Amino acid sequence: MTSDRYSIGVDLGGTNLRISAYREVGESPDGIIDSIALPTRVSDGPVAVVADMAGAIKGLLDKHGRGSHFAGVGIGTPGPLELPEGVMRNPPNLPGFDGFPLREALAQAIGEAVVIESDANLAALAEFRLGSGKTYAVPSLCMLTLGTGVGNGIILDGKILDGNNGMAGEAGHNTVIADGEDCPCGSKGCLELYASATGVQRMAAASRTLQRQQAHSPEDAAAPTALDVANLALEGDEFALTVFARVGTALGIGIGALVNTLNLPLYVVGGGVSAAWDLFAPRMIEELRMRSYVYRLTAPSAEESRQRSPRKTHVVRAELGSDAGILGACLLPLGFAASGLGLSG
Amino acid sequence: MTSDRYSIGVDLGGTNLRISAYREVGESPDGIIDSIALPTRVSDGPVAVVADMAGAIKGLLDKHGRGSHFAGVGIGTPGPLELPEGVMRNPPNLPGFDGFPLREALAQAIGEAVVIESDANLAALAEFRLGSGKTYAVPSLCMLTLGTGVGNGIILDGKILDGNNGMAGEAGHNTVIADGEDCPCGSKGCLELYASATGVQRMAAASRTLQRQQAHSPEDAAAPTALDVANLALEGDEFALTVFARVGTALGIGIGALVNTLNLPLYVVGGGVSAAWDLFAPRMIEELRMRSYVYRLTAPSAEESRQRSPRKTHVVRAELGSDAGILGACLLPLGFAASGLGLSG
Repeated sequence: MTSDRYSIGVDLGGTNLRISAYREVGESPDGIIDSIALPTRVSDGPVAVVADMAGAIKGLLDKHGRGSHFAGVGIGTPGPLELPEGVMRNPPNLPGFDGFPLREALAQAIGEAVVIESDANLAALAEFRLGSGKTYAVPSLCMLTLGTGVGNGIILDGKILDGNNGMAGEAGHNTVIADGEDCPCGSKGCLELYASATGVQRMAAASRTLQRQQAHSPEDAAAPTALDVANLALEGDEFALTVFARVGTALGIGIGALVNTLNLPLYVVGGGVSAAWDLFAPRMIEELRMRSYVYRLTAPSAEESRQRSPRKTHVVRAELGSDAGILGACLLPLGFAASGLGLSG
Repeated sequence: MTSDRYSIGVDLGGTNLRISAYREVGESPDGIIDSIALPTRVSDGPVAVVADMAGAIKGLLDKHGRGSHFAGVGIGTPGPLELPEGVMRNPPNLPGFDGFPLREALAQAIGEAVVIESDANLAALAEFRLGSGKTYAVPSLCMLTLGTGVGNGIILDGKILDGNNGMAGEAGHNTVIADGEDCPCGSKGCLELYASATGVQRMAAASRTLQRQQAHSPEDAAAPTALDVANLALEGDEFALTVFARVGTALGIGIGALVNTLNLPLYVVGGGVSAAWDLFAPRMIEELRMRSYVYRLTAPSAEESRQRSPRKTHVVRAELGSDAGILGACLLPLGFAASGLGLSG
């Protein structure tokens, strides 16, 4: 009955800006029918960035129409984001955006209502509607996105958990090593420091082994990327394997706490580092079994994993790739915005 | 309109069994109109314990009536408890109860429907309806009950968060010190090891200072209780103060992760150890500020604390005392049972 509706999603990153039109038919990751990619002009300030967004959105609206089949505009931003106001709170990758009322500014610029969420919440929403959440047919899930940082989004009974200020789902900054490394967030030993691409790089850079292996490179060679470290691990390099074991340990501790706290049926690990799933997942599951008796009581057998038993706790790799964020932004105006959970306002 | 309704609550502990009748009028902690206290005959097995419960409940029903003003029976048990079945899963303080279908056994014995929950979830429900949740007029809260262990219950939008198997709210076993002490749950460094009465005792027993101070006692003198340690701390004993600082640090790390994950407006600390609030709270808040940028962004000023500002994150001492569990059991049949949150069945 809503088969010809479409929405527009915006994914605001610290480097790239993407604006897509998404057709609802069949609800699939293939629903993106049009996309515009732009650089994010961070140094020109938020007003310039909003003008770029508005221009691209107006172009898509002119092309696809503003009629009743147009469902609205959704936008995802790096956190923290204050909701329901839609005001950005000191986002590390978008200097100059602190306190900027992004939702309202964009709504005024395009003359349409705008729904806003943090990008990690939107990745979780997309994974819930179009990825593993659909495959496992669960009402709720918790997702960790292992990218430059570790994003987190929680879907409860089909809706994003926003919390009281829009800041629920920041488990990437939960402590996993109490006396661990300093984190730019002001804390120490955050999950993000050990399970992000940046974390993999940092742990690898600390390796004398790896430095020795790179001794034949010019001195000004770039530091190994997370992908380099993964490739070394796949070749059997012991230190690179140790780095991914640390990723697995940190994820096991972090997810263990999320299982004990929320007892959801599905925990999903996505983002670029999740491509190294085979390198960290065995250690992650082993640590998780130790850390969470709720997990031990509800862990699926191999057969229950295959059957996706609904009463078990499944920990899986995300099905959607790097499009999860923009897909979530497109889904937001289609009736999947956050519930009032935890909201007092 | 329901002003003459009453309910019956049962609080099943490892030592004591309490059965109370509760009158709904005015919804207050003073609503308990009748109580029966019995020892829990653990060694006689679950069937004997259910017979004791049923006898007491029948006595209260005969006295107060089974008419339309009777709202039902609620029971709280130590966790873990599998829901919706109401089957106990290896409760540490009730050996012999593993796999026992408590809800069904009690329902059959009394010929009435029975609603069941873990005791920490019920303490949170009572605190939400009758204690600080009422004072702060919030829709959601997270409670930690510092007793023999550390219980946890989460109320989201007025309903208990049960999770997929009834095991949400087990944050007492979230890791706070990754390489910490072994926990009977099979993990290491659980919050419970540093913030429970048992934890206070264990940390104090490890103190040579304290042992020296007790050197004048007979050799077979009982180990200092958590209360003894609190009294020493109040007298300025440095080691005892250190013990409570460790309680505060562990709580700050644990609550920090709960704030990052859930972003609720209210976190409540109850149970016996919370009487030592003044000894651990300053360190707890200091650690929490460091561990959670979500807390830093939403922490109330002194004035906002006084005004109980709804958009702030409040961390407070529980208002209800040791009756929280039984009060929660009494509230359960009065329309405050869990939502379907996170439930797939």
